[in-house]
Amino acid sequence: MAAMKGLTAVLSLAYLVALSLTVHGQQSQADGPRYANGTSLVRPTNYREWTFIGSGLGLTYEAETASPTAAPTFTNTFVNPSSYRAFMQTGTWPNGTVFVLELRRSQTEAAPNKGGRFQTDLLVLEAEVKDARFPDGWAFFNFGRGTALSDVTPPLSGEAVASCVECHTKHAAVERTFVQFYPTLLEVARQKRTLKPGF
Amino acid sequence: MAAMKGLTAVLSLAYLVALSLTVHGQQSQADGPRYANGTSLVRPTNYREWTFIGSGLGLTYEAETASPTAAPTFTNTFVNPSSYRAFMQTGTWPNGTVFVLELRRSQTEAAPNKGGRFQTDLLVLEAEVKDARFPDGWAFFNFGRGTALSDVTPPLSGEAVASCVECHTKHAAVERTFVQFYPTLLEVARQKRTLKPGF
Repeated sequence: MAAMKGLTAVLSLAYLVALSLTVHGQQSQADGPRYANGTSLVRPTNYREWTFIGSGLGLTYEAETASPTAAPTFTNTFVNPSSYRAFMQTGTWPNGTVFVLELRRSQTEAAPNKGGRFQTDLLVLEAEVKDARFPDGWAFFNFGRGTALSDVTPPLSGEAVASCVECHTKHAAVERTFVQFYPTLLEVARQKRTLKPGF
Repeated sequence: MAAMKGLTAVLSLAYLVALSLTVHGQQSQADGPRYANGTSLVRPTNYREWTFIGSGLGLTYEAETASPTAAPTFTNTFVNPSSYRAFMQTGTWPNGTVFVLELRRSQTEAAPNKGGRFQTDLLVLEAEVKDARFPDGWAFFNFGRGTALSDVTPPLSGEAVASCVECHTKHAAVERTFVQFYPTLLEVARQKRTLKPGF
């Protein structure tokens, strides 16, 4: 009987520890930014398993405006899952939020498709990170061309980042993020009243 | 000393339990299809946290072809994470794979956007499931309009599904799935040589 009680106690404790490990795994933001040398961002290799928040085709707020004759570019945006879940609860981004922006080539001809465009090669990979250590609270990173991505890249600075900061300050619906283009986030931000005035 | 040994035993056991919970979570396909009444699919409410595999704009292989004057529709495809991971290892889909297809309205005017299109309201939600119990090994489901989604829906049958099966048989690059439109999957299918002849 005492042995049974002891076993039950051990199993209960084991379960509690296991549970706390699991909960801890969710809260410790294991999917947040990884840095090298303090502020250089290590490219997340598994961002395609992160939460997708929206796509666009031919959006021209990108610095690289496509010429009218070039095939338009798809933009896919992903966010680290723990920050996505936090946003769905609060309508705001926790420190350590990582946005990954993919630019992908578009193509139109492949059976059974008879029109419209779908996504092909990765062209450019960029990131935006919320981290209180940066002057504006957010930093921007460019991992370069899809065929030659950097494994680690320092935050953009000087003129390279000025237009990012200006546009993300002036036109972003929530904090420094274009929630107006991400329908599931936009709905939550409306409910939580975290949209900036004018949205 | 006995207390120390006891604590070590508890912690070791806790670790094993935690490990088994994790492994179990990955292998039991907790993210697979949920049915009501045998074969009616329960709408996955968290598919936006599943793995995104690709977007298209204005693709016309959809049954509902947009008229030339209508705004083109975005299509987003998501797959349950455990099946995605299995595909990345093998280039094939395990039994219990669930594809979710979203059709979303596109819009073009919102600062700082000066062209191109981004995603807005959910129009239609559909699913495709690999399940050996169905005649073709795959079944197709339609949860209806975005403003009035069904919580549970039976597999499409008869004429409603004939065109799905025909097109997914004739034109899909891997099994019954249009991997030719999903760039990260296409690369893996090429490496694993699981593309059908002609792709």
